[in-house]
Amino acid sequence: MSKTIFVLNGPNLNMLGKREPGIYGAGTLKDVENRCIAVGKDLGFEVDFRQSNHEGILIDWIHEAGEKAAGIAFNAGAYTHTSLALHDAIKSITVPVIEVHISNVHAREEIRHHSMIAPAAKGVICGFGPTSYILALHAFKDIIS
Amino acid sequence: MSKTIFVLNGPNLNMLGKREPGIYGAGTLKDVENRCIAVGKDLGFEVDFRQSNHEGILIDWIHEAGEKAAGIAFNAGAYTHTSLALHDAIKSITVPVIEVHISNVHAREEIRHHSMIAPAAKGVICGFGPTSYILALHAFKDIIS
Amino acid sequence: MSKTIFVLNGPNLNMLGKREPGIYGAGTLKDVENRCIAVGKDLGFEVDFRQSNHEGILIDWIHEAGEKAAGIAFNAGAYTHTSLALHDAIKSITVPVIEVHISNVHAREEIRHHSMIAPAAKGVICGFGPTSYILALHAFKDIIS
Amino acid sequence: MSKTIFVLNGPNLNMLGKREPGIYGAGTLKDVENRCIAVGKDLGFEVDFRQSNHEGILIDWIHEAGEKAAGIAFNAGAYTHTSLALHDAIKSITVPVIEVHISNVHAREEIRHHSMIAPAAKGVICGFGPTSYILALHAFKDIIS
Amino acid sequence: MSKTIFVLNGPNLNMLGKREPGIYGAGTLKDVENRCIAVGKDLGFEVDFRQSNHEGILIDWIHEAGEKAAGIAFNAGAYTHTSLALHDAIKSITVPVIEVHISNVHAREEIRHHSMIAPAAKGVICGFGPTSYILALHAFKDIIS
Amino acid sequence: MSKTIFVLNGPNLNMLGKREPGIYGAGTLKDVENRCIAVGKDLGFEVDFRQSNHEGILIDWIHEAGEKAAGIAFNAGAYTHTSLALHDAIKSITVPVIEVHISNVHAREEIRHHSMIAPAAKGVICGFGPTSYILALHAFKDIIS
Amino acid sequence: MSKTIFVLNGPNLNMLGKREPGIYGAGTLKDVENRCIAVGKDLGFEVDFRQSNHEGILIDWIHEAGEKAAGIAFNAGAYTHTSLALHDAIKSITVPVIEVHISNVHAREEIRHHSMIAPAAKGVICGFGPTSYILALHAFKDIIS
Amino acid sequence: MSKTIFVLNGPNLNMLGKREPGIYGAGTLKDVENRCIAVGKDLGFEVDFRQSNHEGILIDWIHEAGEKAAGIAFNAGAYTHTSLALHDAIKSITVPVIEVHISNVHAREEIRHHSMIAPAAKGVICGFGPTSYILALHAFKDIIS
Amino acid sequence: MSKTIFVLNGPNLNMLGKREPGIYGAGTLKDVENRCIAVGKDLGFEVDFRQSNHEGILIDWIHEAGEKAAGIAFNAGAYTHTSLALHDAIKSITVPVIEVHISNVHAREEIRHHSMIAPAAKGVICGFGPTSYILALHAFKDIIS
Amino acid sequence: MSKTIFVLNGPNLNMLGKREPGIYGAGTLKDVENRCIAVGKDLGFEVDFRQSNHEGILIDWIHEAGEKAAGIAFNAGAYTHTSLALHDAIKSITVPVIEVHISNVHAREEIRHHSMIAPAAKGVICGFGPTSYILALHAFKDIIS
Amino acid sequence: MSKTIFVLNGPNLNMLGKREPGIYGAGTLKDVENRCIAVGKDLGFEVDFRQSNHEGILIDWIHEAGEKAAGIAFNAGAYTHTSLALHDAIKSITVPVIEVHISNVHAREEIRHHSMIAPAAKGVICGFGPTSYILALHAFKDIIS
Amino acid sequence: MSKTIFVLNGPNLNMLGKREPGIYGAGTLKDVENRCIAVGKDLGFEVDFRQSNHEGILIDWIHEAGEKAAGIAFNAGAYTHTSLALHDAIKSITVPVIEVHISNVHAREEIRHHSMIAPAAKGVICGFGPTSYILALHAFKDIIS
Repeated sequence: MSKTIFVLNGPNLNMLGKREPGIYGAGTLKDVENRCIAVGKDLGFEVDFRQSNHEGILIDWIHEAGEKAAGIAFNAGAYTHTSLALHDAIKSITVPVIEVHISNVHAREEIRHHSMIAPAAKGVICGFGPTSYILALHAFKDIIS
Repeated sequence: MSKTIFVLNGPNLNMLGKREPGIYGAGTLKDVENRCIAVGKDLGFEVDFRQSNHEGILIDWIHEAGEKAAGIAFNAGAYTHTSLALHDAIKSITVPVIEVHISNVHAREEIRHHSMIAPAAKGVICGFGPTSYILALHAFKDIIS
Repeated sequence: MSKTIFVLNGPNLNMLGKREPGIYGAGTLKDVENRCIAVGKDLGFEVDFRQSNHEGILIDWIHEAGEKAAGIAFNAGAYTHTSLALHDAIKSITVPVIEVHISNVHAREEIRHHSMIAPAAKGVICGFGPTSYILALHAFKDIIS
Repeated sequence: MSKTIFVLNGPNLNMLGKREPGIYGAGTLKDVENRCIAVGKDLGFEVDFRQSNHEGILIDWIHEAGEKAAGIAFNAGAYTHTSLALHDAIKSITVPVIEVHISNVHAREEIRHHSMIAPAAKGVICGFGPTSYILALHAFKDIIS
Repeated sequence: MSKTIFVLNGPNLNMLGKREPGIYGAGTLKDVENRCIAVGKDLGFEVDFRQSNHEGILIDWIHEAGEKAAGIAFNAGAYTHTSLALHDAIKSITVPVIEVHISNVHAREEIRHHSMIAPAAKGVICGFGPTSYILALHAFKDIIS
Repeated sequence: MSKTIFVLNGPNLNMLGKREPGIYGAGTLKDVENRCIAVGKDLGFEVDFRQSNHEGILIDWIHEAGEKAAGIAFNAGAYTHTSLALHDAIKSITVPVIEVHISNVHAREEIRHHSMIAPAAKGVICGFGPTSYILALHAFKDIIS
Repeated sequence: MSKTIFVLNGPNLNMLGKREPGIYGAGTLKDVENRCIAVGKDLGFEVDFRQSNHEGILIDWIHEAGEKAAGIAFNAGAYTHTSLALHDAIKSITVPVIEVHISNVHAREEIRHHSMIAPAAKGVICGFGPTSYILALHAFKDIIS
Repeated sequence: MSKTIFVLNGPNLNMLGKREPGIYGAGTLKDVENRCIAVGKDLGFEVDFRQSNHEGILIDWIHEAGEKAAGIAFNAGAYTHTSLALHDAIKSITVPVIEVHISNVHAREEIRHHSMIAPAAKGVICGFGPTSYILALHAFKDIIS
Repeated sequence: MSKTIFVLNGPNLNMLGKREPGIYGAGTLKDVENRCIAVGKDLGFEVDFRQSNHEGILIDWIHEAGEKAAGIAFNAGAYTHTSLALHDAIKSITVPVIEVHISNVHAREEIRHHSMIAPAAKGVICGFGPTSYILALHAFKDIIS
Repeated sequence: MSKTIFVLNGPNLNMLGKREPGIYGAGTLKDVENRCIAVGKDLGFEVDFRQSNHEGILIDWIHEAGEKAAGIAFNAGAYTHTSLALHDAIKSITVPVIEVHISNVHAREEIRHHSMIAPAAKGVICGFGPTSYILALHAFKDIIS
Repeated sequence: MSKTIFVLNGPNLNMLGKREPGIYGAGTLKDVENRCIAVGKDLGFEVDFRQSNHEGILIDWIHEAGEKAAGIAFNAGAYTHTSLALHDAIKSITVPVIEVHISNVHAREEIRHHSMIAPAAKGVICGFGPTSYILALHAFKDIIS
Repeated sequence: MSKTIFVLNGPNLNMLGKREPGIYGAGTLKDVENRCIAVGKDLGFEVDFRQSNHEGILIDWIHEAGEKAAGIAFNAGAYTHTSLALHDAIKSITVPVIEVHISNVHAREEIRHHSMIAPAAKGVICGFGPTSYILALHAFKDIIS
């Protein structure tokens, strides 16, 4: 069985560290990637960490994960709240998906309180900064074993 | 005059046969393509059958069809319900577009009851499995002749 | 097994040809009936074509079709958008029902974008003028065989 | 500084194991408590685990935690979606609160998609069964150190 | 300091002149580009004029402008009304963005009355045909000096 | 040209005089009919006064009036607020229709503030008791001459 | 004083036993009638049991009951949720009306949670299968004596 | 008792004849005034005809009419749909008020379908061009005698 | 098997007889209790009759009934319309629950038209004064035997 | 006649002085109590000042006040916006109730703009800090004398 | 520092005593003015008491108060619920404003439950008849000293 | 042809410089006027610059402009969002109107996101401080020539 976890990041997450540090903190996405790889190794996972601003590429990657991965930790950024296509992509595979967010989306604007993809996901973790990703890896440890 | 019908497929339709067979059936998109080409030939059409998960590429193809095709049978998948840009793309050409769906979207979740693109289309056919595409080809036979 | 298709028409369809020809075209309901009977014959169906302005009579006919017909092509006119009783009538039988409309209801007023009966139907065909009925007959050919 | 984590459980969680096992699983609340205490010990926390069906008692406990605890893992059950008073209780203290749920509330009825207390919380973890509580303890490890 | 203004155009604007001339006029996007470059030169700006139907590419360009440009005149087309991701992209940079539209979106369908990106923009100019772009250049002259 | 005015009455108007006299007054529908016939005679009209509780019959009568009448004064009772089919029936003829009500519907429950048929009518007169009908006859005098 | 109870049944109730037995049970409407007549006799009532799919006929019968009956047990089927005319019919008489339903309408689709006629009725009984009718007869025993 | 009818006209009615003649016709407000005075004389009324664009002045006039007039025919123009203060002004007097409109407001934009003042008025007459005013005078004849 | 029926009463029902007698009648809750006990004895039930103003206590009692009772007749008072926790409590047991109300809640304010607990209940009886409770006991006779 | 005013405080008001001092100020609830007792004495009232986080206890106290008090000054905290049961409790007594708030609830989040209990109260005073309570005592002086 | 309190009254308050005495009482606005002046004198304030039906004049007076007054007690009448311009006027000055109402607006129609101006005011007092004004003067005593 | 541009300013704009300088800046309306006159002169326009807090006067001025002006730059302040009468005033003339705002209304409260007058205007310019007016003059240069 696959030991790979896809960690997928959606629009604007490449700006992490530059973008609104009051909300997202000062670390970069590379920092998050490094931390995920390190913790993943401890937990026995290989982490495949990617980012794209393109909804279509994110859909392609979810389909790919359906073939290759044991789980997906998915921070869909703003597409979380608008993309029914990503919802359907998750529905089209059987691999479990965990929705993650750096900020507590429920403490921000109304539009960010509703997730299009959560109903198709296994669970949701939000509000812990980059640690949200790490908790998702711990959750996969529990789900998969 | 052009004898080509573009059959355009949106997000996640490449997963047909793998994705939620209870809703979408066991046939693959390749099966649908073959059936469309065969029926198209009987009706005197050349069928150009494509799929993309990228909203931007679907817009590009609609513009292209505006130059080359006699009609578009369009299954926009989840973008049906969220994309005003596809609505505008259809409005930007004069070639008739038929919206098709494999499942009866009105018998599913609320969000799938409303189509952004139907107001810009010639008509809608949904609920007949892959036969929805075939009925669209028959409809084009009637519209064009 | 029955070879009869009921084609049921709801309120104001008796005015076809007289009523708002910009939306509905110049042909009469008798023209539609004749075309349905002819195509039905080609496809091996006997077509029983009826119209009523009475919601109650339409319900009675759906019940009757539940006993006698192989399928119902149903243009419920304005009742499409307001009648839960017709929805329940369709649910009360096992014979498949196809919702048809002459005009593209999604390109008209908001209230016509939502169908009460579509969730209980097999599928929907709209926007092709009288050809919508013909496409429904083709669909039944596919469903029944 | 306090090393105690309050784990507070709201209405009907005493029925865990008996109540709708298809949604909540077969383990009892006592099982969850034991697992929290054990993991808490590993992480250096003392866990004070409580349950009440009374909104007023839950408010009292949050105030108490404001004096005695380093953090609160809070599964408010149905009060999550209706209690502005619990929101205010969390606002009235400075100790961080993590909202947890056993089930993925976003995959259930509409009313469970919105949380009254999440805007006042540090973050949210839902959908992982009893493991949601364990992930909250890990999150506190990260927040507090 | 940079003297470059990015003029970014979203979906279907490549169809300008072909698409619904009653709404958008007969000039092409190339005409708009030429006029922007000419006026830009008068005002001391270099104009980098681009168009894409891909939301992801538009996000990439906004990030790029965050590094290279003094301002962005942005006609997001239909994405104006649906894309929270473009909103976030604008928030992720510090360069000022002016939302422009050729038509008066407030005199069109309801869905075009609300802009997702305006709250993140400096200001909005709409309804003046291609002159909307020119007014944005004048506005940048005022903002930057 | 026809000199006949159809005065059509919908559901429950046969109960006039018996039904909620606080709202509708003590006169019977026969009293209204007599007054209409008398005033009609003075104005040069023949009044054809009818009542039915059946939506379908009211539709039939509107179609009939389309052939025979110079105008319709229509008190559709509760169907005013729920019947799109009556709206369509009025649209299907070219004879002018005046919506009348005995009570001031805007001073009653919310649901009676909106009329489905008014957008298809020439005008509306409500709140004057049986005199509403008489004012409609005066209006026809003005419209037709 | 009259000792007759009208038991009126609306659209599709003639299909009882045939229609969706998972929701409505296997007994027929004739079974319900027989049980009502038997219990009615025990309670000293004559039961006049009727069914129609026509809204207009149901209105006529309510008016008739206003003259002849001591009470009406009314299962309006789908018209419960859409018919303001039936509401007005009940208001036009002084005989008490009890709304009954075989299924628990509140546990079904949203549209069945709201009743147009309940505000005009004496009370509501739903969810007990055919026993709902029997309980209504018991209620009339209490109301009338 | 007073024999004076106030005919009050709200914002933009001074533009009658100049303003959107497709909706309002070619006659001027002076023409309407003359016709009202003439018909008023026939009916035994003195007509006091006024127009103001100021909501406050209209309120003042309603108060004045409460002292001096036998009735008010009131075309509040756009204030019809937005002014709760005019509603309250009508409530503050006991003289009957008839709401009149030249156009059929129900056939125009959504916002014009709802009247703030109708619930406080005696009745409403709309859609008959300047004849709406004349019908109101006839109605006052009936109300007052 | 248990022969006990819990009759549970929510907030303010202790004020029965004192509170708004126009709505609730002049009898006290003790009167209702006595009548329930007497009728229960006739039907072979032991009635355990309780009242509390505390949502938490009502939840506790529902859990207790899940162990000890054959059924619950539940008048949740105002909590009917606001308490998702009571809904969940009913879901957490397998004993049937009948929602009862003294008044016809559908004839009162809008907020009382919707029940949070009805979707989890077996059925609903409302509008018959204290007799609503008696009818519930009759219903249990039918359900349990 | 009673000279006692109940001053009742709902959830989280025990945290006054500790909780969000930017909104609620630095004084404690004990300070408010002392000030109320002192002013009450001046006005000839005995003040019975209480606080509870339990909705049920607040209901009990309102009932108690119905027997013993001349008036209730009621700061229901968050229950103001969610509790229909408190509304009903106020309705169940005849003693006048004044709703008070320390902060101006209308200048805070949307959910705090609507009060469930105000329609059942005599009046509302909010926004004056602890002085809101004092003004309520002055109001009772006026109401009772 | 100024010792003047402006007491401003909006539309229809000049009708006090004449208008709907069931809601507003029998005293006139002159009575309220006299009482305000007398109490103001006791509290050390000069009261400048005005009324206008013109929104524009009320805005002018608020601006004037911004220069001359120590506070404004403002009963905006119906403009309370519709005027964003009055909200902005209050925002444009730094003098505190207290919203007052004679009636308890929350116990009246829905539209009167929401205030446009309260979010810009210091606080709100309603429901105490003319005493609402007096309480506002007491509040100013507390705010200013 | 007229060379005059009316620059009309609505409620509270006379407070510019004094009012909320964080939103509107420190310049006064006189400064804006001077700048408009100067730029107008350069562009060949005579600028007639006015301000009123009265909706009725603004309507009068729009009518006046319909006779005398070549265009109107209109900052309607808060009336932008509430006044259908100003919408109608603009519709009643043929002179083009440009809606201008100093602040970016879309980045402020929800109610300011919707404009009542934009659908009747030529275009909208907002967010550029006083420069919004200057851009409108440039736009008129383009429109008129």
